[in-house]
Amino acid sequence: MNWNNPIIKEIIERAIQEDIWTGDLSSELLIPESELGKAVIICNEECIIAGLPVAEMVFYHLSDEILFTALVEDGDRVEEGQVIAEIKGPVREILKGERVALNFLQRLSGIASRTNIYVNAVSQYPVKIVDTRKTTPTLRILEKYAVRVGGGYNHRMGLYDGVLLKDNHIIAAGGISRAVEIIRSRLSHTVKIEVEVEDIAGVEEALNAGVDIIMLDNMDIEEMKIAVGIINGQALVEASGGISLEGLVEIAEAGVDIISVGALTHHIKAIDMSLSLV
Amino acid sequence: MNWNNPIIKEIIERAIQEDIWTGDLSSELLIPESELGKAVIICNEECIIAGLPVAEMVFYHLSDEILFTALVEDGDRVEEGQVIAEIKGPVREILKGERVALNFLQRLSGIASRTNIYVNAVSQYPVKIVDTRKTTPTLRILEKYAVRVGGGYNHRMGLYDGVLLKDNHIIAAGGISRAVEIIRSRLSHTVKIEVEVEDIAGVEEALNAGVDIIMLDNMDIEEMKIAVGIINGQALVEASGGISLEGLVEIAEAGVDIISVGALTHHIKAIDMSLSLV
Amino acid sequence: MNWNNPIIKEIIERAIQEDIWTGDLSSELLIPESELGKAVIICNEECIIAGLPVAEMVFYHLSDEILFTALVEDGDRVEEGQVIAEIKGPVREILKGERVALNFLQRLSGIASRTNIYVNAVSQYPVKIVDTRKTTPTLRILEKYAVRVGGGYNHRMGLYDGVLLKDNHIIAAGGISRAVEIIRSRLSHTVKIEVEVEDIAGVEEALNAGVDIIMLDNMDIEEMKIAVGIINGQALVEASGGISLEGLVEIAEAGVDIISVGALTHHIKAIDMSLSLV
Amino acid sequence: MNWNNPIIKEIIERAIQEDIWTGDLSSELLIPESELGKAVIICNEECIIAGLPVAEMVFYHLSDEILFTALVEDGDRVEEGQVIAEIKGPVREILKGERVALNFLQRLSGIASRTNIYVNAVSQYPVKIVDTRKTTPTLRILEKYAVRVGGGYNHRMGLYDGVLLKDNHIIAAGGISRAVEIIRSRLSHTVKIEVEVEDIAGVEEALNAGVDIIMLDNMDIEEMKIAVGIINGQALVEASGGISLEGLVEIAEAGVDIISVGALTHHIKAIDMSLSLV
Amino acid sequence: MNWNNPIIKEIIERAIQEDIWTGDLSSELLIPESELGKAVIICNEECIIAGLPVAEMVFYHLSDEILFTALVEDGDRVEEGQVIAEIKGPVREILKGERVALNFLQRLSGIASRTNIYVNAVSQYPVKIVDTRKTTPTLRILEKYAVRVGGGYNHRMGLYDGVLLKDNHIIAAGGISRAVEIIRSRLSHTVKIEVEVEDIAGVEEALNAGVDIIMLDNMDIEEMKIAVGIINGQALVEASGGISLEGLVEIAEAGVDIISVGALTHHIKAIDMSLSLV
Amino acid sequence: MNWNNPIIKEIIERAIQEDIWTGDLSSELLIPESELGKAVIICNEECIIAGLPVAEMVFYHLSDEILFTALVEDGDRVEEGQVIAEIKGPVREILKGERVALNFLQRLSGIASRTNIYVNAVSQYPVKIVDTRKTTPTLRILEKYAVRVGGGYNHRMGLYDGVLLKDNHIIAAGGISRAVEIIRSRLSHTVKIEVEVEDIAGVEEALNAGVDIIMLDNMDIEEMKIAVGIINGQALVEASGGISLEGLVEIAEAGVDIISVGALTHHIKAIDMSLSLV
Repeated sequence: MNWNNPIIKEIIERAIQEDIWTGDLSSELLIPESELGKAVIICNEECIIAGLPVAEMVFYHLSDEILFTALVEDGDRVEEGQVIAEIKGPVREILKGERVALNFLQRLSGIASRTNIYVNAVSQYPVKIVDTRKTTPTLRILEKYAVRVGGGYNHRMGLYDGVLLKDNHIIAAGGISRAVEIIRSRLSHTVKIEVEVEDIAGVEEALNAGVDIIMLDNMDIEEMKIAVGIINGQALVEASGGISLEGLVEIAEAGVDIISVGALTHHIKAIDMSLSLV
Repeated sequence: MNWNNPIIKEIIERAIQEDIWTGDLSSELLIPESELGKAVIICNEECIIAGLPVAEMVFYHLSDEILFTALVEDGDRVEEGQVIAEIKGPVREILKGERVALNFLQRLSGIASRTNIYVNAVSQYPVKIVDTRKTTPTLRILEKYAVRVGGGYNHRMGLYDGVLLKDNHIIAAGGISRAVEIIRSRLSHTVKIEVEVEDIAGVEEALNAGVDIIMLDNMDIEEMKIAVGIINGQALVEASGGISLEGLVEIAEAGVDIISVGALTHHIKAIDMSLSLV
Repeated sequence: MNWNNPIIKEIIERAIQEDIWTGDLSSELLIPESELGKAVIICNEECIIAGLPVAEMVFYHLSDEILFTALVEDGDRVEEGQVIAEIKGPVREILKGERVALNFLQRLSGIASRTNIYVNAVSQYPVKIVDTRKTTPTLRILEKYAVRVGGGYNHRMGLYDGVLLKDNHIIAAGGISRAVEIIRSRLSHTVKIEVEVEDIAGVEEALNAGVDIIMLDNMDIEEMKIAVGIINGQALVEASGGISLEGLVEIAEAGVDIISVGALTHHIKAIDMSLSLV
Repeated sequence: MNWNNPIIKEIIERAIQEDIWTGDLSSELLIPESELGKAVIICNEECIIAGLPVAEMVFYHLSDEILFTALVEDGDRVEEGQVIAEIKGPVREILKGERVALNFLQRLSGIASRTNIYVNAVSQYPVKIVDTRKTTPTLRILEKYAVRVGGGYNHRMGLYDGVLLKDNHIIAAGGISRAVEIIRSRLSHTVKIEVEVEDIAGVEEALNAGVDIIMLDNMDIEEMKIAVGIINGQALVEASGGISLEGLVEIAEAGVDIISVGALTHHIKAIDMSLSLV
Repeated sequence: MNWNNPIIKEIIERAIQEDIWTGDLSSELLIPESELGKAVIICNEECIIAGLPVAEMVFYHLSDEILFTALVEDGDRVEEGQVIAEIKGPVREILKGERVALNFLQRLSGIASRTNIYVNAVSQYPVKIVDTRKTTPTLRILEKYAVRVGGGYNHRMGLYDGVLLKDNHIIAAGGISRAVEIIRSRLSHTVKIEVEVEDIAGVEEALNAGVDIIMLDNMDIEEMKIAVGIINGQALVEASGGISLEGLVEIAEAGVDIISVGALTHHIKAIDMSLSLV
Repeated sequence: MNWNNPIIKEIIERAIQEDIWTGDLSSELLIPESELGKAVIICNEECIIAGLPVAEMVFYHLSDEILFTALVEDGDRVEEGQVIAEIKGPVREILKGERVALNFLQRLSGIASRTNIYVNAVSQYPVKIVDTRKTTPTLRILEKYAVRVGGGYNHRMGLYDGVLLKDNHIIAAGGISRAVEIIRSRLSHTVKIEVEVEDIAGVEEALNAGVDIIMLDNMDIEEMKIAVGIINGQALVEASGGISLEGLVEIAEAGVDIISVGALTHHIKAIDMSLSLV
């Protein structure tokens, strides 16, 4: 991850502006600019941490006199009550950044932690847990990062860096073969083609069309196994659609290469954390 | 809510840019620009809908030839399987907007629905359920709207439009009385002063200082009742801190005016929705 | 004031861009990049200084090799001819920033100085001089700062952080009581409600509605006194409308809490200042 | 003037954002979105109007359902109490735009009116009244427009579209001749060279250097006359520096071509105007 | 191509701002706002046209009263002297947009025309001519479009949508196999891996590593043929490096799938075009 | 040139964003953040270098740990194979910036080199080679800089900083005299007036109108000589229109002051350069 990326800088700037706008009335009127202090960020439940560099950037954005020291790294598992970062510098600016920094850190750690549960559930199998485009609008780059921190992999970033032909595309083109033919005749040779199929006939048509990835959409386990057998390594196989933690092992056992899980990012529960002056 | 607000427009533009960037490879290469069609958005679980104007703006932003017709209104309760909107126009643009529009709609409906559960739980009591600043960074204006849609109320928008003195401020100033005195001597007469207190001594000090709102932070029910008795209408009373749905009625019965609930926005579960061409 | 605020940074960037755009033809073509020098900013009339941090930011924005040393502080009264700042560094950049820095400094000092005259006129009375929303478009944050530097206080920052019900609102709602009732049923509990009234009936209706602030709009002194008597501390009392310096003491004597003065910012006379290389 | 210019659009957007930010609490909570009405803008003192297109853009920016009808044109002289514009449409949006529109209109009319006084004072003479770069930061394009509306002319827009060599440049280069020589050897042939001189020796040196415009800086009337005689049409002659209305005719009589007056824009007194629902 | 893309809109806005900034002195001062007229764009040399939608957007951006009618389509071959578009509307705005519109149209047509020469040279062979990242900074999206208009294909859009391992990457990782292994263990399954090789050993190593595309960098024809024979359809083969028009057929005959040509965009010769009022 | 200019910063930011967007997949996944190295930029053909400060800014924008050392200066003539810059720092960031930095450097050096050929061709004559507005959209400030580096001069920057009356303006106004009269009555006294003429009658009319610059548009040599004779130093004379390198000396000999050459920027051939880790 490149934290210097302007997309990330802009997210942080907007988050700060949203919260502070013309100024923090409480801190700016009450706490002298010169007052220095130290704070810690405490994690109040066991989890996988993600987002420490974002929190750091929030504080640095507010004041270049703040020193942020992460005591763990993104991806580390921490215990309830563990201090995960120390922040030294102007108290006024530390208090101003507290909520924004925590808001990032709690959500991203929530995503990493949930991802990690899915990843661990199938760690015995040669399968990758991947995310989807069901991310929080404007925060995708951070949420996909948190998925990787939790041990998952990313699906395409957006509509621009991968082809995924779904029902509507296929109907519009008049079938999988025709759709793939059209796309291939116009597409950059550097882009993979993935097709979503719903039955074995679709699998065979996609295979004949020579696609790179076949997404088995909402198939039952038996059909998945047949599909994996037919495909037999000639394309990557991705299981998708209403994937729950409970059914994960069964799907992995069916032999697919990839399982994409919308819930990694469309169900976000903030991890409980707090900042205290010490 | 003023949907013409540039903050909202910018959120939508960024969400679209994040997903489409240089173009939607699948739709732009496959579906003719001239192909018209119709799609519906279906809600796959019972919930309170929020975000239809945002979804509409997403599609209008992509093409001014799209006609978006909401079949319900924000705040309506819908059944599983109910069609909540129809979209007519260029198929290519409908497909390009699908994911972004749903991502907004599913999350905001999730927030409104959760809020509504809290609101309903205490609808018998003269108490308001309010949100916090624990919102998704950069999306606060929309999330606070969803809280209102669900029947809740908003706390301050940010650090700039209300004073809330917490531990750290109070310690820095040397006590509640001193903190309130300093703030008042510098603050606009149009801004309310809220103080967070942790015990009855704090309540009394805040009351003497003449604050507008007293936040009872993590107090137990018995203490709350005493606090409410002491305050006796001389300030608004807000209960806060680790509020769960289970304990809500008890807190309402204690007589507070406001209950602020972080979970309204820090635990976001997208409502299941889908878009289909018909 | 937090000078690190992005609103202020953006104002400064735009001001510089407006003046320099593709480059300063005179200085860039004539003065070698390496030439170092020293300049002073001289104040050519007695006044209250405001805006030194803004001037400093202008120069720092042009070159990080410039050292700006303020010799007085914002809020200080200076004599005619007094040197108020020294600037050392590349002559080319000092000359490029001269006009923009002075334009800020002269105007903000003009506001602070005018404010100070109003403040001094009633310094014997327990009344606050406050500004209005009649500020120069896009520069409100700086002009409201200058008012504070001059000893005044701020009214609300904008339409978003305070309710002020005027004629048109009240007529639209069908009277003060109804207007206040509607607003209160939807408004955040953290926001104060102010109502503009024009006669004693209005005062009484507003008082009964339990508003936080009552604005006496264009009332004569006798009516004001009656209003103050009726309100009797149950709400803040603000005098407003065509306030002139001459009538100020009389209004203060009437016992109002706040006097809002549009002229603080809608009549701006730049203080005479100049920059000289030394 | 091209009102479609993005610089102007951006000024208006920022002015609106500054005032409204997350929303107009009073109007949005109180006045139904569907309520239509009509308002007028009244000018409460005699003046030259400037800025009606800006006011129109403010309202159109808020709602495309507003119809703004100017009853006079920029540059017209209006009487006290004259209605200068009618606004029909959603009352909520009219009220939201009121203050911002008036803030522009009152200031720009103030500039045009002041300029017009200077212009009229010397209307018998073949001399142009021009502005300076002493404009309100970020609003120069509008203020220079208001000067033209008032009958004045513009000096250069900024540092980028004209050369004006002042003391510091001349000293740095080692004299007027040398400075002009260096500049001319590097400058585009499309840019004029102006030199500021303080005495007759300077006039002669500038003339010999072949500059396009000679600025007589703070010269007394006698010296000006001598300068004009020496220059004798070989360069444009501009009088500048501490120009007051009282001394204007005398300067015009001295035969200069241009008089530049900082006060046109560094002393801004808003014209008294108001908006009323009718 | 989706002309509604905000990247393109922003390019056009900046191009217009760069040329017009505070206003078009000649047209705005001379030509009445109300004067209507008609102009044509004439192409003064035979070429492949590209960029008409961009030219149209330039004029529409300046005035929504302009009607732009393209008489040919992007991709059409036109004769010397052919009228390619008509523009009706306000003369002032037509003249303001003339240079910017032509600058886009002439350059993009230059790229399409050059590309077309390369494409035609090998039209008998099953090979694609593709561009590179050697595009004009900030205009890549338009230049890659022009390449497609000319019959070429696009390589990856940037560093973010495809992996291309070059010398430096391979050395850093310790060989092709190791580099591919590392990348694959972290990369999204939706992204192709391309490796640049310089000799047959590299070809074999890349093939063993299972890469998707093998780029033969600066290989001579004999080596290319051997490489194509070894690869034998197991990966796409791309010839790259100092490709000239003269050597193109020979390379195509060697059997590669793709030839990437930097010159398509790093040598841009504007097609001669002009706009005339008629 | 002021490299700190925000126009240039924004160009660089956009160029980087265009290429990197969400990240450099190859370098970020493969090369450890901590790996340091050194690279050189080699110029593979003889040329005049332009753009080193831009290349430097690209790298500094990516990482403040990079040290960029230019070994030659803009304007220097370099040999084939000469190392023109060294870059030390994080290898990952050096590789990410390689293509963007080279794209700037190669194009700007191409412009400077071509300009230099034109300049050298007429170095014996007192004539200036100047550019036009036929520059690459959004990059004009850099391309005009490169022209200066190559020994050329700039014509006006855009439509805002000089008047150039062409056919269409003149027809619209009803002749040269009338057009100049109208413009002069409204124009700032700081702006020069240039008129494009096509024959001797036009030259005389322009001269009588007292314009500052007369552009001889597409005149043949004999007519040019006559025009120069008539003008006789009373206005600057600019030759323009289809100027080729071959005809340059003849035009210079005709005695014009300025020759404007569109080809300096509308025919851009990137100089061959490369970056290698060493």
